Amino acid sequence: NMNESPVLDTQRIAGNPTAVPPPIDRDSPTTVSVEMTTHEQVAEVEPGVTYTYMSFDGRIPGPMIRARVGDHVEMTVTNDESNSMPHNIDLHAVRGPGGGAEASMVAPGETKTFTFKATYPGLFTYHCAVPNLDYHISSGMFGAILIEPEVGLPAVDHEFYLGQHELYTTGDAGEEGHHDFDFEAMKDEEPTYVLINGEKYAIGPNGHNEMQIETGESARVYYVSGGPNLSSSLHPIGSVWDEVHPQGGIGSDVHRNIQTTPVPRGRR
Amino acid sequence: NMNESPVLDTQRIAGNPTAVPPPIDRDSPTTVSVEMTTHEQVAEVEPGVTYTYMSFDGRIPGPMIRARVGDHVEMTVTNDESNSMPHNIDLHAVRGPGGGAEASMVAPGETKTFTFKATYPGLFTYHCAVPNLDYHISSGMFGAILIEPEVGLPAVDHEFYLGQHELYTTGDAGEEGHHDFDFEAMKDEEPTYVLINGEKYAIGPNGHNEMQIETGESARVYYVSGGPNLSSSLHPIGSVWDEVHPQGGIGSDVHRNIQTTPVPRGRR
Amino acid sequence: NMNESPVLDTQRIAGNPTAVPPPIDRDSPTTVSVEMTTHEQVAEVEPGVTYTYMSFDGRIPGPMIRARVGDHVEMTVTNDESNSMPHNIDLHAVRGPGGGAEASMVAPGETKTFTFKATYPGLFTYHCAVPNLDYHISSGMFGAILIEPEVGLPAVDHEFYLGQHELYTTGDAGEEGHHDFDFEAMKDEEPTYVLINGEKYAIGPNGHNEMQIETGESARVYYVSGGPNLSSSLHPIGSVWDEVHPQGGIGSDVHRNIQTTPVPRGRR
Ligand SMILES: [Cu+2]
Ligand SMILES: [Cu+2]
Ligand SMILES: [Cu+2]
Ligand SMILES: [Cu+2]
Ligand SMILES: [Cu+2]
Ligand SMILES: [Cu+2]
Ligand code: NA
Ligand code: NA
Ligand code: NA
Ligand code: NA
Ligand code: NA
Ligand code: NA
Ligand SMILES: [Zn+2]
Ligand SMILES: [Zn+2]
Ligand SMILES: [Zn+2]
Ligand SMILES: [Zn+2]
Ligand SMILES: [Zn+2]
Ligand SMILES: [Zn+2]
Ligand SMILES: [Zn+2]
Ligand SMILES: [Zn+2]
Ligand SMILES: [Zn+2]
Repeated sequence: NMNESPVLDTQRIAGNPTAVPPPIDRDSPTTVSVEMTTHEQVAEVEPGVTYTYMSFDGRIPGPMIRARVGDHVEMTVTNDESNSMPHNIDLHAVRGPGGGAEASMVAPGETKTFTFKATYPGLFTYHCAVPNLDYHISSGMFGAILIEPEVGLPAVDHEFYLGQHELYTTGDAGEEGHHDFDFEAMKDEEPTYVLINGEKYAIGPNGHNEMQIETGESARVYYVSGGPNLSSSLHPIGSVWDEVHPQGGIGSDVHRNIQTTPVPRGRR
Repeated sequence: NMNESPVLDTQRIAGNPTAVPPPIDRDSPTTVSVEMTTHEQVAEVEPGVTYTYMSFDGRIPGPMIRARVGDHVEMTVTNDESNSMPHNIDLHAVRGPGGGAEASMVAPGETKTFTFKATYPGLFTYHCAVPNLDYHISSGMFGAILIEPEVGLPAVDHEFYLGQHELYTTGDAGEEGHHDFDFEAMKDEEPTYVLINGEKYAIGPNGHNEMQIETGESARVYYVSGGPNLSSSLHPIGSVWDEVHPQGGIGSDVHRNIQTTPVPRGRR
Repeated sequence: NMNESPVLDTQRIAGNPTAVPPPIDRDSPTTVSVEMTTHEQVAEVEPGVTYTYMSFDGRIPGPMIRARVGDHVEMTVTNDESNSMPHNIDLHAVRGPGGGAEASMVAPGETKTFTFKATYPGLFTYHCAVPNLDYHISSGMFGAILIEPEVGLPAVDHEFYLGQHELYTTGDAGEEGHHDFDFEAMKDEEPTYVLINGEKYAIGPNGHNEMQIETGESARVYYVSGGPNLSSSLHPIGSVWDEVHPQGGIGSDVHRNIQTTPVPRGRR
């Protein structure tokens, strides 16, 4: 049972919200190479509460991928040899069987590479899609891939990257000690935690505190909802969204001056 | 009590996803005649699990209706004489009292006809709207009506028709035997089954397996969410929706390259 | 404990759906002054069932505010001296700390004024945003502010104003007597009542019955979803929405002929 992991590594799993690849400034397509390693690791949900997360590259959400329409993306997935389960990656920027899930299925210690062409713009989810994928996503295996249109995106002063998902454990929120995954709670849609970037205090003074801008600056937020069950109603306190790409679609109209935008969970 | 129906008829109630009326190829309006019979019938939710469904024409979702802006639709509803309850039809393509519900209220053995003019384009829900309508909808009485704009819809290689709804029963999912409707579970929004086309295995190798297209072909999905309680977050695995008409509205912009689109339940 | 309020005042708290400020007919900006008093008052949810509501100006939703892009809004909030708690106002039409919450925090008996400039059009939520804001919103402290674009809104024959929110009490729906607030039920998202304009029978023959229009007339509905937890799927029975401003955004496209539109809860 992987929840009884012998190594208690309480390193932070929360992704840094400023870890966004730079805007694309190319006039022609290229090949973008992405390497990710899947991990199963114990980390703290909040001080004193541990869980055996699964992740892409040891952070939640997994690394943000950025490419351009017309690019080829060469995706390499390694399943860390210390892991106990198979993993793979399903990217919603991929048109093909399981969004790449079949081509990237890796056993512990194994590595696989596949290439896809980005044919449509948008901000899309990626996630592990093995059987029992809900368990893997709820444990942290999701992230976002941005496919910029050929003309690029309007310049902004800051870009941030956030991922919401929910954790279902056998314990109660705040209960000290190690929590195991609770399949029954997931089925009943009764999460123990609903988290941004995988930890209770991921963003702010007790976590990553870099999400700061000056008055008059602009910022773009890349927001991915991993689920597995909940959708999100996203509102910036003390402001509105100047422009929203509904459901991450970049190829069509923006909605302007939106106080709260619904973000459906990434899959289903 | 209709749940104690003496006739155990385990015929399939799942609608065929390819049962879509042909695209409209007319330059002028006409009168479209639609006849439906309401049924109360025992069928299997999954092997060994039965339920006394209610339906339009014995299938879930009910037959898809297709007309054009400017058409007159002559709607005839017959309540099968073997039934135990009144039924009617409320079409969201109708602007008028109860969307036609008042004009079509029929007792068992009765037939009624009413005519309406389609004045706006879109994909709309229809459903039974007698008192206790939640019970009737949850038992299967919903479907879709498509009103094409005068210019028609872009041609596609395939069209499919799917309906989501949830069933609330006194049993647990998978529990063998006959299940009765559970009003308390409906009020608590704790469905026993969330179904596509009315059965657990409606679509696929153990059900209707016609939902197949070739690489390079295009397909349009008409998706109706009967509810009565749940909304849907609809994502095509291994792809995105090239074009979405948000909430079925055809008279305004499409959203492009959408991985997951929210489909609110059809009524409320 | 404020739920044990000694004064049992069973006055109606339901706001009149026709209480909409007149359309703006100005070519230049002005200063709009708004005064509101916060109240804590016992009223009936339905006959025989009382609750200690909190409100802006003694009604739910709070008074609708109407201004134009470019206007300055001078907002004065008084906390009635008979109250037991601090209150404030967070308006989603305000770009600034807490949407005005910090500037308007008032203790019982206190008054504060602040001014903001309306810089973007739309229909926005306002709400109390003190700590434990969910409790205050669920008790009735929410409303809407409309910022018209400079060109105004198309003329209509009628305008209506409705607010949805949910109440979490220690009793069951319909249970006679005084109900206290139930924090556990709110956390579990199991409301006792989901209400339009704050009462079970707010609109209709047993409440405000003014929401009537003639065949052929047009009407615009300003719909605010206070939450604190539930989103809404809004459908006009026997009709569709000719034009919807998705999520209240007026600065971008309308969606046309929409049977059901999702309204996310106003905050979070
Ligand atoms: Cu996995
Ligand atoms: Cu997926
Ligand atoms: Cu019926
Ligand atoms: Cu209806
Ligand atoms: Cu308050
Ligand atoms: Cu707010
Ligand atoms: Na990497
Ligand atoms: Na738990
Ligand atoms: Na028929
Ligand atoms: Na059940
Ligand atoms: Na006032
Ligand atoms: Na209760
Ligand atoms: Zn994985
Ligand atoms: Zn940091
Ligand atoms: Zn800066
Ligand atoms: Zn749009
Ligand atoms: Zn078939
Ligand atoms: Zn084909
Ligand atoms: Zn307040
Ligand atoms: Zn009245
Ligand atoms: Zn009138």
